[in-house]
Amino acid sequence: MKVLGVVVEYNPFHNGHLHHLREAKTLINPDYTIAVMSGNFVQRGEPAILDKFSRAEVAVNMGVDIVFELPFVYCIQDASGFAMGSIGVLERTNVVTDIVFGSESSNLEVLDKISNILYEQPKTFKKLLNKHLKKGLSFPNARKFALVEYLESSNYEPNVIDILEQSNDILGLEYLNALKLYDSKIIPHTIQRIKAEYNQKEFTGEISSATAIRNLIEKNEMNKVRQGVPSLSYEVLRREIEKGKAPIMFEDMRDMILGKLRMMKKEELIQIDGVKEGLETRYSKFSKISSNLTELVNHVKTKRFTLTRVKRTLLKIFFDLKERDVKLYNNHGPQYLRVLAFTEKGQELLGKMKDLSAYPIITTPSTYRKIYNRLNDNLLSSKKRYQSIPEIYLNQIEYDFLASNIYTLLFKNRDLSSYEPDKKQRVIML
Amino acid sequence: MKVLGVVVEYNPFHNGHLHHLREAKTLINPDYTIAVMSGNFVQRGEPAILDKFSRAEVAVNMGVDIVFELPFVYCIQDASGFAMGSIGVLERTNVVTDIVFGSESSNLEVLDKISNILYEQPKTFKKLLNKHLKKGLSFPNARKFALVEYLESSNYEPNVIDILEQSNDILGLEYLNALKLYDSKIIPHTIQRIKAEYNQKEFTGEISSATAIRNLIEKNEMNKVRQGVPSLSYEVLRREIEKGKAPIMFEDMRDMILGKLRMMKKEELIQIDGVKEGLETRYSKFSKISSNLTELVNHVKTKRFTLTRVKRTLLKIFFDLKERDVKLYNNHGPQYLRVLAFTEKGQELLGKMKDLSAYPIITTPSTYRKIYNRLNDNLLSSKKRYQSIPEIYLNQIEYDFLASNIYTLLFKNRDLSSYEPDKKQRVIML
Repeated sequence: MKVLGVVVEYNPFHNGHLHHLREAKTLINPDYTIAVMSGNFVQRGEPAILDKFSRAEVAVNMGVDIVFELPFVYCIQDASGFAMGSIGVLERTNVVTDIVFGSESSNLEVLDKISNILYEQPKTFKKLLNKHLKKGLSFPNARKFALVEYLESSNYEPNVIDILEQSNDILGLEYLNALKLYDSKIIPHTIQRIKAEYNQKEFTGEISSATAIRNLIEKNEMNKVRQGVPSLSYEVLRREIEKGKAPIMFEDMRDMILGKLRMMKKEELIQIDGVKEGLETRYSKFSKISSNLTELVNHVKTKRFTLTRVKRTLLKIFFDLKERDVKLYNNHGPQYLRVLAFTEKGQELLGKMKDLSAYPIITTPSTYRKIYNRLNDNLLSSKKRYQSIPEIYLNQIEYDFLASNIYTLLFKNRDLSSYEPDKKQRVIML
Repeated sequence: MKVLGVVVEYNPFHNGHLHHLREAKTLINPDYTIAVMSGNFVQRGEPAILDKFSRAEVAVNMGVDIVFELPFVYCIQDASGFAMGSIGVLERTNVVTDIVFGSESSNLEVLDKISNILYEQPKTFKKLLNKHLKKGLSFPNARKFALVEYLESSNYEPNVIDILEQSNDILGLEYLNALKLYDSKIIPHTIQRIKAEYNQKEFTGEISSATAIRNLIEKNEMNKVRQGVPSLSYEVLRREIEKGKAPIMFEDMRDMILGKLRMMKKEELIQIDGVKEGLETRYSKFSKISSNLTELVNHVKTKRFTLTRVKRTLLKIFFDLKERDVKLYNNHGPQYLRVLAFTEKGQELLGKMKDLSAYPIITTPSTYRKIYNRLNDNLLSSKKRYQSIPEIYLNQIEYDFLASNIYTLLFKNRDLSSYEPDKKQRVIML
């Protein structure tokens, strides 16, 4: 049995995503395809433009058999934490045989070589990394130069610079690293992606970036959007916009985030994951003299702290994601497998997973407390023991609910802010 | 020298306020009149419809010589805490000789008799109070019945029930009690107010309640508003509305408050002043299933916890006003005298106060840190020692700044959310 795993955000699902999904399937020819998808907040440090249920609904219609939710605590982390979460979910299904990810270099040999260095952290490399960090470089840049110098000294000279400047390659490296950390047997594959595609702002017709499409949605140029996304994705978008549930933009969080930040003391800020080296002063000071979030992040960002990092950290501040907790989450990985949507075929696979996975598979989130009690009793099944750590399980899943309850406050139709989606919305079956 | 002190909110300043101010002056015939006024948040548990600087500006134009800001931590407390703050400011100017407050009964003898019981807390009274509290009555109601029974048993039978059901009388009692607690020499006086005037919702022409006028402002019926307020008050209102700084309504805090509340754990809620006896569960639960603040407060309120109390407590939750801190503030009273506006005549009096008061008089808030350092050194003047407790001083004034920085986020003109009014706005001089 071959099971293909992919890591996605589908924010929103566009023609490029469909293209990549099909390519991946052609490459692997899997019996089943499963995706782990960010929930209501995404890795660029923003709320998703469309809620997780709608995005999962599109995914199962487009050829994914099961959509798992990436626990919130991983969604808004840097590439490394994001990979620990997403690869963790795929690994812990215990059925995935292959993962495919986009890569600008599409050079798995080199990526693997580099990820080995990151995994093994040889002393010489660590010294070089610290040298560059001390110069005030951002972590990605310091790492890039350290790797180049390290590989040069070992007479191995691939085009590392290029690889470490490309967003898919960087993420790919972290996936490979995470696979090693989980001691996973999953086989990684790459498919070619064109450089800078991910962040391209202009609409370029049928194949446009998610960024370009979100910009069109925001400007309500729905006729152009229609060209860039599969028709079902378009229909779901239209439907959710009509309901007043989309589009959700970063700036919709203005009052919440500025309101919270203006109240926070530096001693509190400094406990948040990613707030260090004076960032607490920048967040605190600039929150008071910024009219909106765009102004704020532009004030706070520096050469060292990139825009995306500043935005992600802003969400961590709002959601009170402390450094010590994030470390715990990353060390232990995701503690459950939450299903957002599945097809009939996916249902078969879920049946098999129930026997094979060592982690609870959650299709009815309202039972989460029951599962917690069972984890505490360690009596989930007579056949096997579950491996979740009860307290971490509880923290992670309660964060998912929390994130949803905040997300509903962003709906344009405010009457829809009064239901708890994770308690009310059933898993989507196709 | 006679100095009249009044406690006001002027939210907004209307014909009734002008009438009362003139009556009070006729009664006392003072050399100077000073007011202590709520800042950007008021005792009914809402943001003020107009910011504190504009309201202070109107006050000095209408016959007040100096407007002091009631420190934020007292503004959103119940009658007792509000009185400890406002009477504290008047007392600590050390120049006020008389205060006048509105009263439905206008029976100072009876009010004083009752306030003596509250001040002395005789054992029999305390027993009666506890008996009624245990029945599940709200505090004001339990106190009312306990007082009636206590006074009946001592053969003293004024119409206590009436007095304890009238908002001005209730506040008046607390003023009298506070005067005793401060061991004040200020002489209290009452002027007659008509029952229920304060909360009257309908517009009744020239003399209408602040509630009625706020409703008209919200509905943008400015021609009716013009009838109910002095022309200068009207002009300031118009000007601030045109700037996009008014009107500010309770519901404008929806995202901030619901966003914060949905994130809070019960263990955190229970530390907030006024959150007890299961209120933490009500706030937590209903925050998730309410679309807006009006829905929320209607869900949370009970026979025991009145609407106003629920709203005030909501602000305390948002501003993280913990029970232990409020106790400290109420035990020690206001630690400084912050001037929002004064007339030329008021300036004379301020000059005298600088010698007479034992508390720092703040006209330039940006110097607050310097004053803190001087309080710590206790070297404010060679002639006398200041009585402020440095840490409490700092907490109180920083809360004022915080409240202003949150208030600016509510402005319709969002460009105006990026300045810190308490640092930028100069004291108003007429």
